[in-house]
Amino acid sequence: MTRPNPIVPTVDFDAEGVQHGFLRLPYSRDDSAWGSVMIPVTVVKNGEGPTALLTGANHGDEYEGPIALMNLARSLSPDQVTGRVIIVPAMNYPAFLAGTRTSPIDRGNMNRSFPGRPDGTVTEKIADFFQRVLLPMADVVLDFHSGGRTLDFLPFCAAHVLPDKRQDAEAFRLVRAFGAPWSVRMLEIDAVGMYDSAAEEMGKVFVTTELGGAGTASATSAGIARRGVRNLLVAAGILRGEVEAGETRWLDMPDGDCFTFAEDGGLIEFLFDLGDRIERGQAVARIWPTGRTGADPVELAARRSGLLAARHVPGLVKPGDCVAVIAVEVDG
Amino acid sequence: MTRPNPIVPTVDFDAEGVQHGFLRLPYSRDDSAWGSVMIPVTVVKNGEGPTALLTGANHGDEYEGPIALMNLARSLSPDQVTGRVIIVPAMNYPAFLAGTRTSPIDRGNMNRSFPGRPDGTVTEKIADFFQRVLLPMADVVLDFHSGGRTLDFLPFCAAHVLPDKRQDAEAFRLVRAFGAPWSVRMLEIDAVGMYDSAAEEMGKVFVTTELGGAGTASATSAGIARRGVRNLLVAAGILRGEVEAGETRWLDMPDGDCFTFAEDGGLIEFLFDLGDRIERGQAVARIWPTGRTGADPVELAARRSGLLAARHVPGLVKPGDCVAVIAVEVDG
Amino acid sequence: MTRPNPIVPTVDFDAEGVQHGFLRLPYSRDDSAWGSVMIPVTVVKNGEGPTALLTGANHGDEYEGPIALMNLARSLSPDQVTGRVIIVPAMNYPAFLAGTRTSPIDRGNMNRSFPGRPDGTVTEKIADFFQRVLLPMADVVLDFHSGGRTLDFLPFCAAHVLPDKRQDAEAFRLVRAFGAPWSVRMLEIDAVGMYDSAAEEMGKVFVTTELGGAGTASATSAGIARRGVRNLLVAAGILRGEVEAGETRWLDMPDGDCFTFAEDGGLIEFLFDLGDRIERGQAVARIWPTGRTGADPVELAARRSGLLAARHVPGLVKPGDCVAVIAVEVDG
Amino acid sequence: MTRPNPIVPTVDFDAEGVQHGFLRLPYSRDDSAWGSVMIPVTVVKNGEGPTALLTGANHGDEYEGPIALMNLARSLSPDQVTGRVIIVPAMNYPAFLAGTRTSPIDRGNMNRSFPGRPDGTVTEKIADFFQRVLLPMADVVLDFHSGGRTLDFLPFCAAHVLPDKRQDAEAFRLVRAFGAPWSVRMLEIDAVGMYDSAAEEMGKVFVTTELGGAGTASATSAGIARRGVRNLLVAAGILRGEVEAGETRWLDMPDGDCFTFAEDGGLIEFLFDLGDRIERGQAVARIWPTGRTGADPVELAARRSGLLAARHVPGLVKPGDCVAVIAVEVDG
Amino acid sequence: MTRPNPIVPTVDFDAEGVQHGFLRLPYSRDDSAWGSVMIPVTVVKNGEGPTALLTGANHGDEYEGPIALMNLARSLSPDQVTGRVIIVPAMNYPAFLAGTRTSPIDRGNMNRSFPGRPDGTVTEKIADFFQRVLLPMADVVLDFHSGGRTLDFLPFCAAHVLPDKRQDAEAFRLVRAFGAPWSVRMLEIDAVGMYDSAAEEMGKVFVTTELGGAGTASATSAGIARRGVRNLLVAAGILRGEVEAGETRWLDMPDGDCFTFAEDGGLIEFLFDLGDRIERGQAVARIWPTGRTGADPVELAARRSGLLAARHVPGLVKPGDCVAVIAVEVDG
Amino acid sequence: MTRPNPIVPTVDFDAEGVQHGFLRLPYSRDDSAWGSVMIPVTVVKNGEGPTALLTGANHGDEYEGPIALMNLARSLSPDQVTGRVIIVPAMNYPAFLAGTRTSPIDRGNMNRSFPGRPDGTVTEKIADFFQRVLLPMADVVLDFHSGGRTLDFLPFCAAHVLPDKRQDAEAFRLVRAFGAPWSVRMLEIDAVGMYDSAAEEMGKVFVTTELGGAGTASATSAGIARRGVRNLLVAAGILRGEVEAGETRWLDMPDGDCFTFAEDGGLIEFLFDLGDRIERGQAVARIWPTGRTGADPVELAARRSGLLAARHVPGLVKPGDCVAVIAVEVDG
Repeated sequence: MTRPNPIVPTVDFDAEGVQHGFLRLPYSRDDSAWGSVMIPVTVVKNGEGPTALLTGANHGDEYEGPIALMNLARSLSPDQVTGRVIIVPAMNYPAFLAGTRTSPIDRGNMNRSFPGRPDGTVTEKIADFFQRVLLPMADVVLDFHSGGRTLDFLPFCAAHVLPDKRQDAEAFRLVRAFGAPWSVRMLEIDAVGMYDSAAEEMGKVFVTTELGGAGTASATSAGIARRGVRNLLVAAGILRGEVEAGETRWLDMPDGDCFTFAEDGGLIEFLFDLGDRIERGQAVARIWPTGRTGADPVELAARRSGLLAARHVPGLVKPGDCVAVIAVEVDG
Repeated sequence: MTRPNPIVPTVDFDAEGVQHGFLRLPYSRDDSAWGSVMIPVTVVKNGEGPTALLTGANHGDEYEGPIALMNLARSLSPDQVTGRVIIVPAMNYPAFLAGTRTSPIDRGNMNRSFPGRPDGTVTEKIADFFQRVLLPMADVVLDFHSGGRTLDFLPFCAAHVLPDKRQDAEAFRLVRAFGAPWSVRMLEIDAVGMYDSAAEEMGKVFVTTELGGAGTASATSAGIARRGVRNLLVAAGILRGEVEAGETRWLDMPDGDCFTFAEDGGLIEFLFDLGDRIERGQAVARIWPTGRTGADPVELAARRSGLLAARHVPGLVKPGDCVAVIAVEVDG
Repeated sequence: MTRPNPIVPTVDFDAEGVQHGFLRLPYSRDDSAWGSVMIPVTVVKNGEGPTALLTGANHGDEYEGPIALMNLARSLSPDQVTGRVIIVPAMNYPAFLAGTRTSPIDRGNMNRSFPGRPDGTVTEKIADFFQRVLLPMADVVLDFHSGGRTLDFLPFCAAHVLPDKRQDAEAFRLVRAFGAPWSVRMLEIDAVGMYDSAAEEMGKVFVTTELGGAGTASATSAGIARRGVRNLLVAAGILRGEVEAGETRWLDMPDGDCFTFAEDGGLIEFLFDLGDRIERGQAVARIWPTGRTGADPVELAARRSGLLAARHVPGLVKPGDCVAVIAVEVDG
Repeated sequence: MTRPNPIVPTVDFDAEGVQHGFLRLPYSRDDSAWGSVMIPVTVVKNGEGPTALLTGANHGDEYEGPIALMNLARSLSPDQVTGRVIIVPAMNYPAFLAGTRTSPIDRGNMNRSFPGRPDGTVTEKIADFFQRVLLPMADVVLDFHSGGRTLDFLPFCAAHVLPDKRQDAEAFRLVRAFGAPWSVRMLEIDAVGMYDSAAEEMGKVFVTTELGGAGTASATSAGIARRGVRNLLVAAGILRGEVEAGETRWLDMPDGDCFTFAEDGGLIEFLFDLGDRIERGQAVARIWPTGRTGADPVELAARRSGLLAARHVPGLVKPGDCVAVIAVEVDG
Repeated sequence: MTRPNPIVPTVDFDAEGVQHGFLRLPYSRDDSAWGSVMIPVTVVKNGEGPTALLTGANHGDEYEGPIALMNLARSLSPDQVTGRVIIVPAMNYPAFLAGTRTSPIDRGNMNRSFPGRPDGTVTEKIADFFQRVLLPMADVVLDFHSGGRTLDFLPFCAAHVLPDKRQDAEAFRLVRAFGAPWSVRMLEIDAVGMYDSAAEEMGKVFVTTELGGAGTASATSAGIARRGVRNLLVAAGILRGEVEAGETRWLDMPDGDCFTFAEDGGLIEFLFDLGDRIERGQAVARIWPTGRTGADPVELAARRSGLLAARHVPGLVKPGDCVAVIAVEVDG
Repeated sequence: MTRPNPIVPTVDFDAEGVQHGFLRLPYSRDDSAWGSVMIPVTVVKNGEGPTALLTGANHGDEYEGPIALMNLARSLSPDQVTGRVIIVPAMNYPAFLAGTRTSPIDRGNMNRSFPGRPDGTVTEKIADFFQRVLLPMADVVLDFHSGGRTLDFLPFCAAHVLPDKRQDAEAFRLVRAFGAPWSVRMLEIDAVGMYDSAAEEMGKVFVTTELGGAGTASATSAGIARRGVRNLLVAAGILRGEVEAGETRWLDMPDGDCFTFAEDGGLIEFLFDLGDRIERGQAVARIWPTGRTGADPVELAARRSGLLAARHVPGLVKPGDCVAVIAVEVDG
C-alpha cells in the first residue's frame, strides 16, 4: 500500500479564479523541529479546458523559467484562460533559494529523482507530488531548463521523438509555437529518473528548453522565455490571443561525438564561441595546467563538424567535465 | 626595522633568457607543517630596456588575464624582447586555484591588501612582495581584471587620470595601444589598498582592464586580452613588432548615479543587456520576491541615461548588490 | 533472511543486579577506521517482574529525559526493583553529544527511522536494535520528549488513544501516575517511522512526554521528569514505594486549526506566552521583515480559541515554521 | 590622517520628519564583488531637542531590542517628538540575520570592537561609524541586550556607576524610568572595546539592559522592552506623554564570587531557576558526564548567597562556561 | 530488469597491448552539471591466459597499493605478460584524491558497498561496475589495503579460509608467493558489503593485504607492495620471471579478545610498539583525560598474550575506537 | 599603557606544594557568550631554587610532550623538587583538543604568535601570557615538539647556538642530559614570532625537541620524552636523582640544500626511510601524477649527502611541501 504524499497544498486545484499559495512540505530538522518547505504555486482556472503544468528551476540555478513564470503568475487573469494553468516557478525550491543545481538539503537532482518517494528525501517527496498529484492533472507540460552555473547553451526549445505519433506531433507543434531561436528534436534520452519521462510515460505532451546559462539570464533570454510560454499556452488552446511569430532553426545532436570531455583539469581557453562553426579536428579549446608557466596546454579537438551549441562556463575545468557540445543544423 | 619578505623566488630576475619558476611563499598549516604557496612566474630578459610587470588573477575568478599571460609565458622568446617581461598569471594564486575572488586561505582581496605586510596573512605577504620587490623593478605595469563570477562588463582597457602629466599621457598611450573595444578614463578612485595606487605612487605607468566576467572567458574576450598585452608590450618598446590596430570607443562613469544598488533581495530580471542604451528613469531590472507568487516585483530605475556597461550576474540578487552600471560615451 | 543487528552490548540483559555499560555500534569512518558509537546503557534487574524500557534524547536536544534517567541510573538499586529497568538516557546518542535534534552523522531523525535497518545508517541501526532487541524485552516503554532547541511546550505527559482497550487504559493509567502538570490524549498520529508506533504495534504500553524545550531544562521541568519516571515505575509495579501525587490538567489538540504556520520569514514578536488564553482571530504573533524598518509586520491570527500550548523558540522565523499550537482544555 | 568611514547612509540625519533607510557598507566578497551590507535605520526628527540613539542586536541573537525598535520605528511620528530619535534595530546586522552573537562574516563581537577601524573588518567598520558619526550626534544612548542563545537573565535595565555625577545621575534616572522588573547598578566593567565605554567616554548618558535570553523573546520580555524604550524617551524629554510606572527591584553583582564557572563538560542539571534564592554552599547545578551512566555528577556550589540572576542555557555545558550568576538584592 | 552500469570505459578490455585510460562515471553536480569522475585504469593484454584484477585505494587513505600499481602500470609491457592484467590503482578514486578512507562525495566506504547499485551513489556505482563488469573478467584478484590514517599494521598479506578447497589453496599459494613479512589466514569475516566476499562468491581467487598505515607509506612498505604484486603475477602464471623469495611468518587473530576498544576518550600513550610481545593482563596503553592535569589515566589491559599487530594512530583516542589488535604466531 | 593579560589562573604560582588547575581565558563566542578556554596547568614548588617551565602541544598535533608532561604532572611530588616546576602539557590547548597544528578558533600557529597580544586572538592572548607572566618566572624552558600530522623526524633534542656563551653552554648541557638518540645544534633560525626567541631574548635557557611525528607517538618516542624531561630537571638541579645516561649522535642541517620541496602535487613514493644514508643526486622520492596511469613520475633528487632526518607524512603531496630533510652527522 502506497503512503500518501506529505505535501499539503494551500490552494484548491479545482477552484475557479486565481489562487496564489504554497505546496507546504513538512520538513523536521535541527533548526526547525516542526518546519516546512513552502513551494510557491499559482493556479488560474476558468471553466472547462485543458490543463497546462508549467515549471521552472527543476535545477535551482536556471533562471529564464522562474522569471517567465513569476511574470505569468502575476499577470494571468482567469478571463484570459480557458481551462487551467498550474504554475510552479521553482520546482526544486530549496535549490532555487540556494542558487544551486541540486537541493542543499539532500543534494537531490530533481531531474534524476522521478518517480520520487513519499517517504524519501525532500527532493524525492516533491518529485512524488508531481508524479502522483500534479502530472495526472495536466494535458500539457512545459519544463524550463537552462545551462545553470556551469554550462551555457544556444537558446532552444525541444521535445523528445516519441513512438506515439499524436503525442510526438503535438509536442513539436508546441515547440514550434514556443518560437525559440533554435529548436531541437531529441532522438534518445537517458530516461532514468527524469521528469520528462515521467510525463511522457503518462501520455502527456511534454516540452522543455535550454535557454542560456552561466547562472544568470539576459534580457534577451528572459524575453524568449516570457514570449515562449505565452505562445505555447495560446497554441495549446488555453490562453486567448495569437502566437507571436518567431523564426527558429533546427539542431540535432546525433551521437556521442557531439560531446567533448576533458581528461585534464586546468585553465580553459575557448577558441570558439556559442554559435560558431567548427570543423572536425579543429581545437575547440585548450586546457592550461595551473601549476606552472611555460608548459604546453592540452588541446581538445572537435570530433565532428557543426555549431558550438553548448560549452562549459567556469574558467577552471575539472577532469571529466563536458567542455563543449557540437550540434548540426537540420531541417525542421 | 622592516623585516624581509618571506617569499623565495626560484628564478633570477636579473638573468638573461627565459625562466619559468615560482615565487615560493612558506605557509605552515594544519595539512602541511612545512608547506608553501608556489606562485608560477616567468621572466624573459634580453639586454637593457624597460621592464613590464604583467599580472592576472589579482581577483581569482577573472580569466582573460591568466589565459593571455599563460599564452605569452609559453611563447615569448628573448630574441623578441628588449628589456624584461615579468609574468605572474595568477597574482592571488590561492584564489585562482579556488576559482574565487578572494583567497580561500585568509579571504584576502588582493586589491585591498596593498602595501601588504611581510608578517601578515598570505595575501598580505604576496602584496608586500609586489610592493617591495617586483613593482620597484617595473617601468610599465599591466594588471588584468574582469568582472569575476558576480559581475559582467563591456570589455574595456583603462587607466587613471593622474596629476603627473607624463605618467598620465604614457598610461593612456598604452590604453590606446591595447586596443580593447572600449576604453575608460577613470577620474577618481577609492585608492585604499589597491595595487593600482601602489604602482602609481611609485611613478609607474599603470594600465588595467575589465574584459568580461561571469566567471569565465569567451573566445572573443580572451582574444582581446591576448592581442592587447602584445600591443601594449610593443607600444612600450619591449616587444618587437607592430601594434595590431583596433578601434576603441571611450566611456566615462562620472558620478555615483552611474551605479544602481539593490535594496531588496530576490530573483533578478534584467530588461536590458550590456551595451544597450537606457534612458534615465527607465527600469533597468526587476527584482521578484522569491517567497511567493503573485506579488509585485521591485523595479530599479536608471538614475542617468547611457549604456549598460556592467551588470550583476547571479540570477538571485542580495540587498546591497550593485545591479547595474550605466556609462556615458565620451570622446577619447 | 534478515541480517543480525551489528550492535554489541557490553551488558547482559538477563543478569541480576546493576550493570552500567554500552551498546557498542561499529562505525567505520574517516577519523576512525575501526571506530564505534558507544551508547551508554544501564540495566537493573531483580527477579521476575515486568520490564520497563526508559529512553531520553530520542531527539538529541531534549534534556529533561536524559537528566531524569542519568539520576535514575546512578541511584536505582536492585533491591528497590521487582523485574527489570533498562535505561538508555540518550537514544540518539550522536545527536545528544552534538546537542542537535538529528544525528550529526547521517542527519537521522530517530523518531522517523523505525523500524530501522541493520545495514542502514547509524540512526537506522540504532532503531533496528530497539525494534528487534530492546522493545521485545519490554512491557512498559517511556520515551521522554521536550521541544528541543526550536520549540517550547507546556509540560505534559501523553499517550495515544488505541483500539486495544487494555493497552489504552494501561497507558493512560501510567500517564496519570506520571503526574505532569498537563496530560494529553493524542487521538491520531502520523505514525510513519515513529518509535511510538513501533512499540504500540508490538502491544507495549507506551507513554511519552513534552516537558519544555528551548534547548535546555529548568529546575522545574527536570523535577517533573525525575518525579514522573519514578511515579511511572511505581505504578507499573516495578519500583517499590508510593506514587507522589500531582495534579494534572487535560489538554486536547483536536485538529489542524490548532497549528499556525508562518508563510513569511522574519523577526517574530509573540503577543502571548505559554499557558495564556487566546481567542479565535486574535493575533498570536507578528512577523517583522528584517530587511528594512518602517514596514508593516505580518500578523498571525489564531484559528481557534484555547491555550497557547507550544511555540516557536528562535527569535527569527522561517517560512513554513510552526509558530504556535493552541490546545483546548478537556476533562481527563 | 584618519580615513573616512566607508558607510554611505541613505538618510539625512539633519532632515525633519521620518526617514526609513539604510547604512550601506560596501562589502566586496566572493559572492558579490560589488556588494554591500544594508543596515536598516530610521530617523525621526522634529525641531530642536536632544538626540536619542537606540540600538538592538549589538549581539545578533538578542531579540527584545529589535522587537521594541521595529515597533517604535514603524509607529513613531515626528509630531510626538521634540528633537531626534535615531533607531538602528540591528547594530550587528549580519549577526542578527544569522541569529548568532557574532558576525558570520568576521566573527566580530560588536561589543568588543570599539572604537572600530574604517579599514578593518565589517564589524570594525560598523563600530567606527557609531564611534565617529552616530555617537557624536547623541545625547542619550540606549543599547538593548539580552542573554542571547546561551544565557538567560532576570529582566533588568542597568547603567554604570560613573565618576561624573551628572552623567551618573542622569543615567540612573533613565534606568528608573525604563521600569524593568529589575534594575542594576554596574560598579565596574571590563571596558575594553565596549560600546558602553565608547559612549560614556564621550560624556553621553548610556543605558543598557539584559531582558531575558535563550535565543528568543517572550511576550512578557518584549513588552518590557517596548514599554521601557517609550518610558526612557519620555523621561529624556524627547517623546511626548507620561512614563508608564512600573515597580523595579535593585540588584548588585559585587564581585567574582557571583560567577560560577564549569571546569567540566557534560549534561547540566539546574537545581534552581531564575529568581530563586540560593544559600552559599548549596549546589546550583550538577554536571553529568555524558560518556557513561552510573558515574557521579560534579556539583557546582554557590560561592555566595543571593538570587539566581543569570544561567547557562544549552543543555550541554563546556569546560569554562559561566553556569550561573548570583546577585544580591540592594536598595535602589 | 537491471539497468546497465553508467560507467563508460575509454579502454577496450579485449584489445591486445597496453592501454591507459579511464572509467568515466557521469556525475552531475552543482559545480559541473555535466561532470564525470575519471578513474584511471590500465589494461595490459597479451594473448590467452588468466586475468588478474589489481586494485588499490579501496580505502582512499591507504598508499602502498596505489604506489605499487602506478609503478606496475607504467612499467608493464605486453611481452612480459601471458593473459591480461587490469590495474585500477585507486578504486575509490574520489576518496583517494581527498586522502580520506571514504568518498568525499557520499561518504561511501567502498568495502561496505558491494554489490553496489547502478542508480545509487557514486561509490555504489563504482562497486556495481566491479561487481558486474570487472570481477567477471578476472581469475585472480589482488586488493591492496593498509591501515589508513587511523590504524597501523604489521605488514601482512592474507586470504580468507574458504570452504572450496581449490579456491582456498590457490589463494594461500598466492599469499605465500606475495612474500610479505607476515601472512594471515583469516578464519571468518563480516562479509556484508565487502569486495572480498563479492569476489570469493564468484569463485575468484582473492588475495588482500594490510601493509602499514598512518596515512603514508614508507620506502620499506612500498617495496613490499611493489615486489609482492610482481611475485603474485608470476605465481599466477601471468608475468614472466621468478618469484623473488621472501620469508614470511604466519599470524592468527582467533577471536574477539584480540581486539581492545576504548571506552574513554583522551590522549593515548602506548606502552608497546608494533611487533612487541605482550602478556595477557599487561597494559597495552593508557588514556589520559585531556580536561585536567593530575588525574589518573585509564589503563587498557591486553585480553590475550601475543604480538601487537595493529594499533590506533592518532594521538587522541575517542570512545569506541579500536586501540590495539593482538595476534598470535602460528605455523604457516 | 599595556593592558593586562585576560587569563585568570586558578593556581597560585608562589604557593608551596602541588597544585593542579587551569589558566582560564575568557572567550565569548556564539556557542557560549560567557565561555572560557580552560588550559590545564600544574605547579610543583618546594622552597628556593630554579624554575623550569615545561610545555607540550605548542603545535596541537604533537604528542610526545603532552604524554611526558601528563605523566610528570601526575607523579611529581614536592619533596622530589628543589625550586619550582610549571607544567603546561598543551600550550595551544584548543589546537591540542582538535588534534591540529594550529588553533581551530583562529588558525593561530602558537610558534609564530610571540610576543602575543592581550587583546588579540585566543592564540595571541595565550602567547602574551607566556611572554609576560610565565617566561619571566622561568630559568629553564623546555618546549616539546614533534613532526605533527604531516612530518616525521628522527628523534632529537636541540638548542640554538647563541651569542651568550653561558646561555649557550647551559642549553647544550641540558640537551646532552636530555639524552635523545639524536641531538642537534641549530645554527640559525627564522626567529620571527617564535617562543624559542622570546625565551632566549629574556636570557632563559631554552631547550626544544623533535621526537617523531605522523600525528601520533610510539611507545619508544614517548619513552624518550618521559625520560628526557626527568633527565633535564635533574641536570637543572630541580629534581632529585641521577641523569639516566643515553647515547646521542649529533646532527647538523647546515644550509638550504638540506631541504627538498615539491614543485608538483601527487602520490609520493619514498625511496628511503628515516635514518637511511642518501648520496647527493640520488632520488629521495618520486611523485606520481594522480590524474592518469602510465605517466612518468617526477623524481626529487637529494641536493646533498647525508641521513634522511625528516620526511613528509601524508601519502599525497602538494606543490610547495617540504618532502625531505637531509642532515649530516657531526661531532657533538
